[in-house]
Amino acid sequence: MYKKHNIEDILEKGEEIFRKKGFNKTGVEEIIQSCGIPKGSFYNFFKSKEEFGVKTLDHYTEKQYKTVKELLSDSDISPTERLMNFYLGMIEFNENENFSYGCLLGNMAQEMAGLSERISAEVDRDLRRITSVIASCINEGQNKNEMRNDFTAEELAQYLQNGFYGALLRAKAEKNKESFQLFMRTSFEFIKK
Amino acid sequence: MYKKHNIEDILEKGEEIFRKKGFNKTGVEEIIQSCGIPKGSFYNFFKSKEEFGVKTLDHYTEKQYKTVKELLSDSDISPTERLMNFYLGMIEFNENENFSYGCLLGNMAQEMAGLSERISAEVDRDLRRITSVIASCINEGQNKNEMRNDFTAEELAQYLQNGFYGALLRAKAEKNKESFQLFMRTSFEFIKK
Repeated sequence: MYKKHNIEDILEKGEEIFRKKGFNKTGVEEIIQSCGIPKGSFYNFFKSKEEFGVKTLDHYTEKQYKTVKELLSDSDISPTERLMNFYLGMIEFNENENFSYGCLLGNMAQEMAGLSERISAEVDRDLRRITSVIASCINEGQNKNEMRNDFTAEELAQYLQNGFYGALLRAKAEKNKESFQLFMRTSFEFIKK
Repeated sequence: MYKKHNIEDILEKGEEIFRKKGFNKTGVEEIIQSCGIPKGSFYNFFKSKEEFGVKTLDHYTEKQYKTVKELLSDSDISPTERLMNFYLGMIEFNENENFSYGCLLGNMAQEMAGLSERISAEVDRDLRRITSVIASCINEGQNKNEMRNDFTAEELAQYLQNGFYGALLRAKAEKNKESFQLFMRTSFEFIKK
């Protein structure tokens, strides 16, 4: 129990610092110090900083997956409304951070694509996991005739995610939510039946 | 002349290394060594690594701007074809690098949003410059009745750019061009009249 608690603490701290400063700018030393654990314990849990990065991504995605799945399974409202609420929630979250930190998956994809195959592969797996939940909701929307079906649910899910990540990148430079508002207006116009 | 030549060499090297490794992972020492110039010269040209980052972005954008402007002003083909050629060219460029490095503007927006206001502001200015050329081409497409006009040319340009940057991020994790192909199919379907 003690050990498990410790690992989660370190992964949470990793998520927080990696999101704010990026993977390369963060040293293992900084993680260890802010968790108050000895170096030996860190390397007991994780073989390397790269492995720690992979585990942090997996932990982050596990939490996101649960939240997104719950939000997108709420059968009290329409699939379109569920998806809109999901994206509006993410926009609000980013606005509360003044659009400075973004999403760990997007940041790691951007920063580590040419530097670590293991991290890239983990990001790929994680992005697919989240996109698959969005695709299920879109599939429901297509069956209810709310959404266009000349593209597959997976394609429309990927389309929405690409539009969102592009808008997020723009918002990070611009420090306002205009690009997100445009994303909502254009993308939902595109996917609707 | 000698001085000017040197500055451009350093900016080119900065662009190359920052694109491959990111801003934070690259030390000034590495730039200096690969250019074969003394440290004093670097700090004669640039007050800090941050200033060097800003100048590198400006230099990179200046080149991109000229290329994009030329490509998108070719009146021998339709505005839609010009835009398609532009994006297909960028996709091919990224494919040739195995989707590992991406665009300096996107990378810097992602990596530096929470770390440097000066760099963020420069990225914002640079992204706007490129988007404005795309908007001019879309404006022509709207006037020729090729493209929808229930959104402004600036909005559609931003929409295309967001979709492209989102697809690029996905391609970096996935290491193939599927997300780009989806971008082309969906986005050009959306902007057409």
